[in-house]
Amino acid sequence: MDIQEKISRINWQREPEGLYAPIAYTMAAGGKRIRPQLAMIACQLFGGNPEEVAPAAMALEVFHNFTLLHDDVMDHAEVRRGRPTVHIQWDENTAILSGDQMLIEAYKLLAEVPAFVLPEVLQMFNKMATEVCEGQQYDVDFEKQDQVPIADYLKMIRLKTAVLLATALKMGAYIAGADTQAQDALYQFGINIGLAFQIQDDILDVWGDPTTFGKAVGGDISCNKKTFVLLTAMQMANDVQHQELSDWLEQVLDDNAEKITCVTNIYNQIGVREACNKVVEEYTQQALNILDNLPQNAATDELRNLAKKLYNRNQ
Amino acid sequence: MDIQEKISRINWQREPEGLYAPIAYTMAAGGKRIRPQLAMIACQLFGGNPEEVAPAAMALEVFHNFTLLHDDVMDHAEVRRGRPTVHIQWDENTAILSGDQMLIEAYKLLAEVPAFVLPEVLQMFNKMATEVCEGQQYDVDFEKQDQVPIADYLKMIRLKTAVLLATALKMGAYIAGADTQAQDALYQFGINIGLAFQIQDDILDVWGDPTTFGKAVGGDISCNKKTFVLLTAMQMANDVQHQELSDWLEQVLDDNAEKITCVTNIYNQIGVREACNKVVEEYTQQALNILDNLPQNAATDELRNLAKKLYNRNQ
Repeated sequence: MDIQEKISRINWQREPEGLYAPIAYTMAAGGKRIRPQLAMIACQLFGGNPEEVAPAAMALEVFHNFTLLHDDVMDHAEVRRGRPTVHIQWDENTAILSGDQMLIEAYKLLAEVPAFVLPEVLQMFNKMATEVCEGQQYDVDFEKQDQVPIADYLKMIRLKTAVLLATALKMGAYIAGADTQAQDALYQFGINIGLAFQIQDDILDVWGDPTTFGKAVGGDISCNKKTFVLLTAMQMANDVQHQELSDWLEQVLDDNAEKITCVTNIYNQIGVREACNKVVEEYTQQALNILDNLPQNAATDELRNLAKKLYNRNQ
Repeated sequence: MDIQEKISRINWQREPEGLYAPIAYTMAAGGKRIRPQLAMIACQLFGGNPEEVAPAAMALEVFHNFTLLHDDVMDHAEVRRGRPTVHIQWDENTAILSGDQMLIEAYKLLAEVPAFVLPEVLQMFNKMATEVCEGQQYDVDFEKQDQVPIADYLKMIRLKTAVLLATALKMGAYIAGADTQAQDALYQFGINIGLAFQIQDDILDVWGDPTTFGKAVGGDISCNKKTFVLLTAMQMANDVQHQELSDWLEQVLDDNAEKITCVTNIYNQIGVREACNKVVEEYTQQALNILDNLPQNAATDELRNLAKKLYNRNQ
């Protein structure tokens, strides 16, 4: 039973087409399917029944894609995974309503887990979904804040990105019958790889290879996004570098090519890339350490490989 | 235990404020709270435990308010219940994200029903939520269609409006331990009062008293909305009246006062108000008939009064 295939087999050919075609379009875009994979690996780790975990794994993937759909509306993003976003391909109202329906579809999939685990699974899912929305709101709030402490930034990406990975693992383990301690350990593994993943994303947005990264490099610099890279740079900068960065942050330009080059140069002077890489490495290492205290089998190895792959990824 | 009070006591004072303040604002606007009331009356009808039904009743009210919030964004509506809508009071992104969180909050409330009814309750809720979104999509689709058969219109308002009332009743009855036949009867009662309610709404938009209706009269005429009144008028009109109506439908004006007066005059000539009133009366009568086959107690009387009150309402 391949979870990717199960996801691709969900039938979205329903009426009214205006509601479901954008969902089919979104789900067909692919992506790494990391969240459902994590749920299935956690199930395997504790010898659970994959058929019991699969509905929850699929629910998590549909939920994740729902957040992308609505985030793209809010960010006015025009391209996602190399294709026009839903609000561009259709219109904004379609993106809102089809997104709402995707969230409901996630709950419909979730409702298919065995009845005896449903109360706890629903509660886990609701907590995670709430935290993702809270994280998104903090991200929005940061845009209007002059100063963002790095601790606040880490809290935001924990909510917006890491808890979904962590919940996928915990939910898979719970349904598979793992004890609370093991569930919590996997949750922490997920938090750590989630934080590493997001910080790596911030790094790739500056230094990624445009041919493999999948989106334009320098996007965060262009829109003055308060990323881990920028916040770390501001903290490490000397007075001159700090002033230069602040000056660039005040510029809102049509053509950002020069800004991207100059800000990247300042980052390079400061040595912020190495500092951020070190943080990614630390979170990855913490994640790997957690695995040492769990049962050792093919699933543990797979989680190890996944953590290392995320660390070494260039896209 | 008063369900209205329970709803007003939900604590929305949470962080981040940017996410929860718009939810508090939406929920504080009041409204008739008909859906949770219906769930509680259905519970009472079958002698259920109100504490077991209350979380579901609250979930239905939060869900209903979520749909209003997102519908207002999609309709660019600026006023709701006499106050600026969320996307006006804050902004569109806030309305999208806080709306998403409201949908999740509905599921959080739902998760508080007793575990042994949760699988069925969740399934009922998911079905209803899906149908409401489908109804909204059909409503949007109708804007682009030249012709809308009355049967299609009725299907749309059944999905968009009636199933939520019907599900409130059925869910209350189910949690209270009613048998399937009784649940289905109450569901049908809800469908009938829901259809009557929406058609009455269409009538009030033309002939309502502006001082009691709560919104400007003639709004549907101004924006050429395909309401039950318009569709019935088109069906009943002679060739001349049909042509006059079609001509007005092609006009998009800044000042709609003359259009509202003239279209209303054509409606009056045709006698469409009486025809629509008759349909409302028929659905109400069908609803009342269903009640005769259910247990007779104070709750049945309350449902009877409610159906009659909705029929005679002027707001």
